[in-house]
Amino acid sequence: MSGPKIEFWYEFASSYSYLSVMRIEALARDAGVAVEWKPFLLGPVFLAMGWNDSPFNIYPPKGRYMWRDLARLANKYGLPFRVPSRFPRSGLLAARLALLGVEQGWVAEFSRKVMLANFAEDREIGEPEVIGAILADLGLPVDDSLAAAVTEDNKRALRRQTELAAELGMFGAPSFRVGDELFWGNDRLEDALAWALK
Amino acid sequence: MSGPKIEFWYEFASSYSYLSVMRIEALARDAGVAVEWKPFLLGPVFLAMGWNDSPFNIYPPKGRYMWRDLARLANKYGLPFRVPSRFPRSGLLAARLALLGVEQGWVAEFSRKVMLANFAEDREIGEPEVIGAILADLGLPVDDSLAAAVTEDNKRALRRQTELAAELGMFGAPSFRVGDELFWGNDRLEDALAWALK
Repeated sequence: MSGPKIEFWYEFASSYSYLSVMRIEALARDAGVAVEWKPFLLGPVFLAMGWNDSPFNIYPPKGRYMWRDLARLANKYGLPFRVPSRFPRSGLLAARLALLGVEQGWVAEFSRKVMLANFAEDREIGEPEVIGAILADLGLPVDDSLAAAVTEDNKRALRRQTELAAELGMFGAPSFRVGDELFWGNDRLEDALAWALK
Repeated sequence: MSGPKIEFWYEFASSYSYLSVMRIEALARDAGVAVEWKPFLLGPVFLAMGWNDSPFNIYPPKGRYMWRDLARLANKYGLPFRVPSRFPRSGLLAARLALLGVEQGWVAEFSRKVMLANFAEDREIGEPEVIGAILADLGLPVDDSLAAAVTEDNKRALRRQTELAAELGMFGAPSFRVGDELFWGNDRLEDALAWALK
């Protein structure tokens, strides 16, 4: 397990994280780079910068541009996309489950389904019913998984991961780390993978 | 003059504009796309979003990341780079001169020299002496050019161009326009050129 690897830090509410969640597994496999999935929450990171909402909502010109940019990029990558009727949606429950998925080996597929629900199917990923349907779709025990997501240990683990993101210098998502090298944004996924192979 | 073309909106104080100023002419020539150089000022655009300084200074984690990212990208593109001892430097005088350069056909070479002075040579591009030396280097009449830069007409033209940038939805630099399509950031230069060829 000492081959090339990349840490992938993402948030289910984040529009550009959607693109990277959908792209990273195939790109990393082709490159021969292992991916460590690191779900975290942007809310506390943004609050530390003085933002109590997504900067795409706080700064309307940035927001208008982002949705157009995202539509163009989704088209370029061949990904489905629909502007969600609510933004941002809470990624809290999904992130808690994704932490379990890391331990249990289903994080990649779970993350893709949640992201598609948010950014292609306009579904309320903050709701347990929507996340439950995704868990069922993956053949996972719905009630047990939802219960395991909200244990004190698991809630603490997500808080700790979010604090760590800020300590490591992150200020947005997606972010990638290769050793101590930080890369920010879906645009840097290919550069980060290349760095892992140096 | 109805072939493919791209508008290139940039600011001499902007670190990522440096990369695009250095790259755009060769890439556009290879693609067969004409470039319209549109120098403008970010200051008023940022003020309208509530920022009285570069967001890279207001948000330290973003700033720390940006300088590392810029060093990596400069290396990738084979461009010289040194973190400037002052940031941002005023791009006002250089932008006024660049407007003259658009009319007189020397904007591309002038812009590259100013950007190199700021981001590779750590020179004070806000100072008339530094800009004057660049004009002399280009074989241009220094005193006449500096005088022409600060006529009321030319000052008004730059104010108008800056207002237009905001009206067109711009919120940062570099930005590219192809028809009504807006692209933001050095990362989008290739996509914008491809769009111009659609």
